[in-house]
Amino acid sequence: MNLSDLGELGLIARLRSRLMSDCFEVVQGLGDDAAVLRWREGRLLLFTTDLLVEGQHFQLDWTTPEDLGWKALAVNVSDIGAMGGQPTFAVVSLGAPADTPVRLVDGLYEGLLGSGETYGVTIVGGDVVRSERLVLNLALLGEVAPSALTLRSGAQPGEVLLVTGTLGDAAAGLYLLQHGAEEVPPPAAEAVRRTHHRPTPPLAAAQAIARTGKVTAMIDVSDGLAGDLGHLCTESQVGARVKAAQIPLSPVCRTVAKAVGQDPLAWALHGGEDYQLLFTCPGEAVAEIRAAAEAVGVEVAVIGRITPSAEGVRLVEEDGREQPLEAGFDHFA
Amino acid sequence: MNLSDLGELGLIARLRSRLMSDCFEVVQGLGDDAAVLRWREGRLLLFTTDLLVEGQHFQLDWTTPEDLGWKALAVNVSDIGAMGGQPTFAVVSLGAPADTPVRLVDGLYEGLLGSGETYGVTIVGGDVVRSERLVLNLALLGEVAPSALTLRSGAQPGEVLLVTGTLGDAAAGLYLLQHGAEEVPPPAAEAVRRTHHRPTPPLAAAQAIARTGKVTAMIDVSDGLAGDLGHLCTESQVGARVKAAQIPLSPVCRTVAKAVGQDPLAWALHGGEDYQLLFTCPGEAVAEIRAAAEAVGVEVAVIGRITPSAEGVRLVEEDGREQPLEAGFDHFA
Repeated sequence: MNLSDLGELGLIARLRSRLMSDCFEVVQGLGDDAAVLRWREGRLLLFTTDLLVEGQHFQLDWTTPEDLGWKALAVNVSDIGAMGGQPTFAVVSLGAPADTPVRLVDGLYEGLLGSGETYGVTIVGGDVVRSERLVLNLALLGEVAPSALTLRSGAQPGEVLLVTGTLGDAAAGLYLLQHGAEEVPPPAAEAVRRTHHRPTPPLAAAQAIARTGKVTAMIDVSDGLAGDLGHLCTESQVGARVKAAQIPLSPVCRTVAKAVGQDPLAWALHGGEDYQLLFTCPGEAVAEIRAAAEAVGVEVAVIGRITPSAEGVRLVEEDGREQPLEAGFDHFA
Repeated sequence: MNLSDLGELGLIARLRSRLMSDCFEVVQGLGDDAAVLRWREGRLLLFTTDLLVEGQHFQLDWTTPEDLGWKALAVNVSDIGAMGGQPTFAVVSLGAPADTPVRLVDGLYEGLLGSGETYGVTIVGGDVVRSERLVLNLALLGEVAPSALTLRSGAQPGEVLLVTGTLGDAAAGLYLLQHGAEEVPPPAAEAVRRTHHRPTPPLAAAQAIARTGKVTAMIDVSDGLAGDLGHLCTESQVGARVKAAQIPLSPVCRTVAKAVGQDPLAWALHGGEDYQLLFTCPGEAVAEIRAAAEAVGVEVAVIGRITPSAEGVRLVEEDGREQPLEAGFDHFA
């Protein structure tokens, strides 16, 4: 049996069962956006890592080194934000061919530093090694008050499902990078490409939302709404009904989709890399949470409801038809 | 200018100057075995990372997945030990081709878990992605009491230079893997190959040595004695005189060297991957430190003295001749 037979989620489940820890200090091990560790009175330590591999996660002829560095840190910041936390310190591992131009590495660190400055992260160490292709791993620490910690696992049937910002823009950008943007108005093309290259996870909003203490489950949308809603529902042992018409799509995403004849909803559901937040709360908490997010300039949209597990995860189309909503991308499939 | 022009140390120096932090919480950023962070009263947080790339750091036809997993964690444990610390929590990033057999990944995690159990490390999270070649990144946390923290930077002229265990065994093992072991007695060949594949950093000894409070500088020997002594001297702004005859070589290393017609001292100086400890202390502390290490079954050997910076790093041969001792391996050169 190969990894392609097991699939990404199968592999994660297999590792998780083997790495299950009964250590008192481990509040949450594998299975959330970041590990949660008891560390000192009144604060939890968050710990996450992400590996970016040339040819899989980025193409050097599409992205600038600055954008790549920015994104490598931002995707980890997104994980810490999804726990309600504040990122703090990062270590960076860089594998690169010997003929890599030094200015590429300079650009990479410029992006890392810019992202770090934006989100309050200090790079404190790392490793540099030779590698045939560019490989970039970030490991990031963060902290959170126990009362603000938001896991994937607390959603209850009857609660409301919400998302920050708009979804699908990053996938629109990736589509244009892959297929060209001849028919697309240049400002719209540039906007979605920028969202793909330089994601800006809504960290302040994540923290503001989490601090209300009303969020029952939260995850960042990195694999597309379908996939990440699936993760949230699995961890919470619930189902969900999402209304297609309520999924927030940006005007530029719609413009690009129309110009290239694609469905923007498919980008939102299966495209990934939006780094927005998907979360749940009791219906009566929506106003307070919306106000907390809007106070830091972020919109939230109610996109559905949590249902009992047996009902599964379903998408309700505008015409009322329903269908199961299944995850798309698998790293190994 | 490419990375091969700048070299590994040039790259690290360049990054270090850019990543210099004046953050109060950062006790030590780039330039030691691990970053040191103020975290809670009476304890410092240690944070380190290492990237292993197939074809550069390991060959899958030489190593078993179990050994690779063991080593990936052990080399990070070595970094935490060199700070006098106790490793605690790790996150693991794995990049692997889709046709990777699941049993390879199982073996890898078996090795990681075995190493983790030996050294008291819990794996709390990670990332799995697709990659053309196997890539394994570990990020490891640890902690240490401020009084036991051992940086690279405290050595003073006149102090004694010591090393734990024996050096060169891992390089002997690598030599046999690269060149074959036909002429070598099988037990000796197996012993040095095992040291290469399954390093066992002397963590308990590192902690015992550090707890004496008499160590002025410490580093783990991962790049060979010449390279790591160079790092220690650079950070401490000192020179050193090492007596070749006092560098501890194991009987099996000598046996292998003789059988294949190589110089075991060259392996000790330039071979790397021994994961022993190189450290300094005032002469009057040697007995106490030796006793602390021997109490946990580890020998320490005095191999030289720290000198003023202007005298450089020098090797004194058995016949009394002296020569500059220069670092060998450069990842990018």
